Amino acid sequence: MHRIAIHGGAGALRQDLMTPEIEKLFTETLLQSLTTGNDVLAAGGSSVEAVEKAVIVMEDSPIFNAGRGSNFTNQGRIEMDASIMDGSDLRTGAVACVSEVKNPISLSRLIMDDGRQVLLAGEGARSFAVKKGLELRDFDYFFTHHRWDAMRRSINKREVELSEDIVPLHVESVSVFDKKYGTVGAVALDQQGNLAAGTSTGGITAKAAGRAGDSSLIGAGTYANNKTCAVSGTGHGEYFIRATVAHEISALVEHAGMSLQDAANKVIQENLAGLGGQGGVIAIDRNGNISISFNTKGMYRGSMGSDSETFVKMYKD
Amino acid sequence: MHRIAIHGGAGALRQDLMTPEIEKLFTETLLQSLTTGNDVLAAGGSSVEAVEKAVIVMEDSPIFNAGRGSNFTNQGRIEMDASIMDGSDLRTGAVACVSEVKNPISLSRLIMDDGRQVLLAGEGARSFAVKKGLELRDFDYFFTHHRWDAMRRSINKREVELSEDIVPLHVESVSVFDKKYGTVGAVALDQQGNLAAGTSTGGITAKAAGRAGDSSLIGAGTYANNKTCAVSGTGHGEYFIRATVAHEISALVEHAGMSLQDAANKVIQENLAGLGGQGGVIAIDRNGNISISFNTKGMYRGSMGSDSETFVKMYKD
Repeated sequence: MHRIAIHGGAGALRQDLMTPEIEKLFTETLLQSLTTGNDVLAAGGSSVEAVEKAVIVMEDSPIFNAGRGSNFTNQGRIEMDASIMDGSDLRTGAVACVSEVKNPISLSRLIMDDGRQVLLAGEGARSFAVKKGLELRDFDYFFTHHRWDAMRRSINKREVELSEDIVPLHVESVSVFDKKYGTVGAVALDQQGNLAAGTSTGGITAKAAGRAGDSSLIGAGTYANNKTCAVSGTGHGEYFIRATVAHEISALVEHAGMSLQDAANKVIQENLAGLGGQGGVIAIDRNGNISISFNTKGMYRGSMGSDSETFVKMYKD
Repeated sequence: MHRIAIHGGAGALRQDLMTPEIEKLFTETLLQSLTTGNDVLAAGGSSVEAVEKAVIVMEDSPIFNAGRGSNFTNQGRIEMDASIMDGSDLRTGAVACVSEVKNPISLSRLIMDDGRQVLLAGEGARSFAVKKGLELRDFDYFFTHHRWDAMRRSINKREVELSEDIVPLHVESVSVFDKKYGTVGAVALDQQGNLAAGTSTGGITAKAAGRAGDSSLIGAGTYANNKTCAVSGTGHGEYFIRATVAHEISALVEHAGMSLQDAANKVIQENLAGLGGQGGVIAIDRNGNISISFNTKGMYRGSMGSDSETFVKMYKD
């Protein structure tokens, strides 16, 4: 028995922008990510390995707000957050505000396996990646016109409207979601019964330099524990941190005896929404049950595994 | 009714180094911190204000590993972590790896009050402090001989012993603790019934550049929620993150119906110790009950408030 679930961001669905071509592009990339992760699990590989490999597919695609397709800061830079956690022993690794690294999820895993630190930020994270021989990419690799324009528009809009909170939709983007909350992630159960979770993001469009979100914070955007579940979130990171989303879901399962779906619903629809936060989570338990909850109009998501139906969705059920 | 509790680090107590003069210095500084925070509370001020002011006293003293007395990275730099949380509305602010800022706890509070971000790292955090007009200090301010020597010894020891895990004691330091786990923090209950927690640290001696610890992570080193408790931790940050220490204590109180003391004991003596992690926490609930738990030989700690006895301790009871 093995299973994997992934997400590619949640947000305000722009159905007016949706075309069959765009839907196909997202569906195919999500399926490729699922297949890549599922192949690892089917071959007896670890849930950590499956999560990393599935996330890499989304990081390498320019259509998601992670790795190659990351949003720009308000200074026009790329600063990525990511984390990974092994539910079998609670080992974890994370990066915040890292530049140039092609796959922040792989850097997170190397930090976890190295074991001396858990979270590395900025130049220290990049320098660790160089020492470990990870692939770097220059600015051109990460440059996507729709993200750049979104950042410029966001900054211009601010100047006009005197508001720093407005993040416009990228109408020329292939995305049909407001990528303010774009993030990718995966959770998996392997044949050994071990859970893992991983998350990766470019952060919010035109974010402040040095702003780290929930994707780099264990307990907020990512958490995995064999006793309970593995969780990966996507949404407005500041609210995910305040609500300690991922760990609270685990705590409700462990201490309040809730089902994983009830716990995910409570934290996303009540706790997070109660603070005014938008987003969603994917989660999996040791029996391979997948629970998904989001309070946005849509969320790219999917699942694949043994003895279970493969699906990819973006709208509400 | 109001009350405050503080800590100034936990570690391996070196009783052979303890003198009446050293004990007096620590006791006096801890009492000054307590009095400063308690004065805020007695005057009807908020728990957030009391926590910030109490932590500032310890940040401004060279004897604690936070602010002025911060440890050095393995590159000889100062990189500080801090966070603060308001239990009344779950607002929070945090910094990771920030340099030059005299009081990282005040920067955390400014980030919280600004509200756009929760966590700022590195140069972005410093730049935010400059914009807000916070006091900066140059390297000389932060330079303390005993920390510098500890960093140099740690690096030399590594070269000789081929181990990066050994952090020697600073025998010429005024500290009688292994400052590997030095960190300061405060929790408070104000007359309005609101809880708050704050933590500040220079991190582990000779840490890697860019390494962030639990003191910058909500849910790990700091957490406050009026529904349950306010918690501040000190110890080996990587383990605090893996065990999600502060939020797990809150979750045990909220969902498992545990008393605050039982929850603190379980997380520090079982969960954290089970992973091999060392350290301790101070915590307070809405009735003003103080709970303290640590699995090290000693922990600088104290409490003051209305209708309660003032104490300052460093050894086990």
